[in-house]
Amino acid sequence: MSDRSTPLPPGSTIGILGGGQLGRMLSVAASRLGYLTHIYEPGAAPAGQVAHALTQAPYADEAALRAFAADVDVITFEFENVPATALDLLAETVPIRPGLDALAVSQDRLTEKTFLQGLGLATAPFRDVPDLPMLQAALEELGTPAILKTRRLGYDGKGQVRIVDPAEAADAYAAMAGTDAILEGFVAFEREVSVIAARGLSGEVVCFDPGENVHQGGILRTTTIPAELSPALRTDAALLAGRILNALDYVGVLGVELFVTPAGLLVNEIAPRVHNSGHWTQAGCAVDQFEQHIRAVAGLPLGDGKRHVDVVMENLIGDDMDRLPELLAAPDTQIHLYGKAETRPGRKMGHVNRIRR
Amino acid sequence: MSDRSTPLPPGSTIGILGGGQLGRMLSVAASRLGYLTHIYEPGAAPAGQVAHALTQAPYADEAALRAFAADVDVITFEFENVPATALDLLAETVPIRPGLDALAVSQDRLTEKTFLQGLGLATAPFRDVPDLPMLQAALEELGTPAILKTRRLGYDGKGQVRIVDPAEAADAYAAMAGTDAILEGFVAFEREVSVIAARGLSGEVVCFDPGENVHQGGILRTTTIPAELSPALRTDAALLAGRILNALDYVGVLGVELFVTPAGLLVNEIAPRVHNSGHWTQAGCAVDQFEQHIRAVAGLPLGDGKRHVDVVMENLIGDDMDRLPELLAAPDTQIHLYGKAETRPGRKMGHVNRIRR
Repeated sequence: MSDRSTPLPPGSTIGILGGGQLGRMLSVAASRLGYLTHIYEPGAAPAGQVAHALTQAPYADEAALRAFAADVDVITFEFENVPATALDLLAETVPIRPGLDALAVSQDRLTEKTFLQGLGLATAPFRDVPDLPMLQAALEELGTPAILKTRRLGYDGKGQVRIVDPAEAADAYAAMAGTDAILEGFVAFEREVSVIAARGLSGEVVCFDPGENVHQGGILRTTTIPAELSPALRTDAALLAGRILNALDYVGVLGVELFVTPAGLLVNEIAPRVHNSGHWTQAGCAVDQFEQHIRAVAGLPLGDGKRHVDVVMENLIGDDMDRLPELLAAPDTQIHLYGKAETRPGRKMGHVNRIRR
Repeated sequence: MSDRSTPLPPGSTIGILGGGQLGRMLSVAASRLGYLTHIYEPGAAPAGQVAHALTQAPYADEAALRAFAADVDVITFEFENVPATALDLLAETVPIRPGLDALAVSQDRLTEKTFLQGLGLATAPFRDVPDLPMLQAALEELGTPAILKTRRLGYDGKGQVRIVDPAEAADAYAAMAGTDAILEGFVAFEREVSVIAARGLSGEVVCFDPGENVHQGGILRTTTIPAELSPALRTDAALLAGRILNALDYVGVLGVELFVTPAGLLVNEIAPRVHNSGHWTQAGCAVDQFEQHIRAVAGLPLGDGKRHVDVVMENLIGDDMDRLPELLAAPDTQIHLYGKAETRPGRKMGHVNRIRR
């Protein structure tokens, strides 16, 4: 793997940091290309059920990390919040794709938004709010409603406080418990769409068709393909995803969440990995987002991204699992369960891809 | 699992006898439904790369068989020639699906053809040929060309001798080396098609669309969907598959190879398992043949079998692997490699599903 341009031959081992559903589906995709996978995960690891090897150890366990690095030919991740110390240690001996620079950008909302604006892309207005007076000043500038978000580690609506009245500033700031935060201004958007884009080792970029996302309680509920989007915005979406991938010298799949506004597209956030809103590709494309990511990481040519059928993806969250008998009996419905032992409220247990005729 | 009507809950373990590519793809399909898999395989087991557990032991190892049985909730197989002693031992404690009666029918060409004719289905003319004089008499009755086939254990053209002239009888008989054999008369067929059909625990039958098969050197080369077949023959194919499944009280997926002749359909052979000619369903259907089999075996409702796109499946045999770079770069092409360590002539290394637009 020393030569960046050589594709990884079948029989090689791909290391995956994180053993949740994304790692699980990456592992299955890797197997289709003849690769073995080795999962590294500190906690419960349903991905290990379909992987060749599983290391269950903390990210601080240097011996485990070194043994993992020695067993794999390239490393990728399903999860952007792997501690930097672990990544730095692994990167000493094995290529990590996407690279750590790309990861660093998306790990911090302030860095990410600054990066996006630097590329000339529109984002929600935002302010760095290191203290309460700065938050109060930012609220005055951006107005309400606004959302206070942790700079790091937020996902699925966690680490966010909505501020409707400036008088709530102190409470909202206290809720951050000293965590670095940014304030985002309100965006009047018509809909949310996302683009799942990929960049190969040799720099080629391929986008899947944008999907339209509906959230509930901060968690993605459905993605519908195709999104209701004018041809011009469809082109814009692909172009801006390409600009982000190239600027990051990115290798792999990246999820770009976009707001559709009267003034055009606005980037909500980027995720340096396969993305929940790209699960529809399992039913709609010859090469799905998981295989696309593995192809990029392994230095193979990318799939063409073309869709041969329309799809609605619906997440199965918590008690949605009670609907399983009905979903199994529904026509044109593809079910993907994640092998998690316990159903909990708000927990993603699986998803279904419904083919639309 | 004592109650035949209760679906296997997610988190249960499905035991799979055989660790080749079919077991591998069954294991991946099981994972989508939230099941764990345990592979039992005496030899090389690429299926183990995507399974939760792997037992590598001979079929004569009673202790290993008992440990395997104790770990799983239901047993199925990718391979119809598992020794009866092993199956009988396993069946003492765990349900095996499809059942051993169905298996016994398809393990012996003579039993199989007799069974099919008993159902009123057309087959190639055949004669039991326990000795050379019987073979000579059979050649006189059925004429030449004819094919001498071992009653058991033949696949991919192995264990077959074509007889063009009755004078070759003695040599052909000698080539069988004392193995029980049958003689099959020549069938002037227009094309070969196959139906992949499934029967659930509660008796429902679902067929995938018939595919058209092209063989080369006795090995399946391509399957094209849809097959060129009149609506009447299409209906006949589904009806006869259903008749076979019901007569066997079958649970799981069954492959039925058919010859299309001027007089209608003729059953060439049946395979009590997922079948190479059903691999196209991975690209063409919401629920593919592997998941369909797992659904049946687990007592879940079957998928609807509907096709949403046309597909050509092509096997990658031996040196076809040299074409991998070109195939990876081809549009609308889904690649499935089997994780086999060594490429050998005539060895199935993978397949591609090409979506036809």
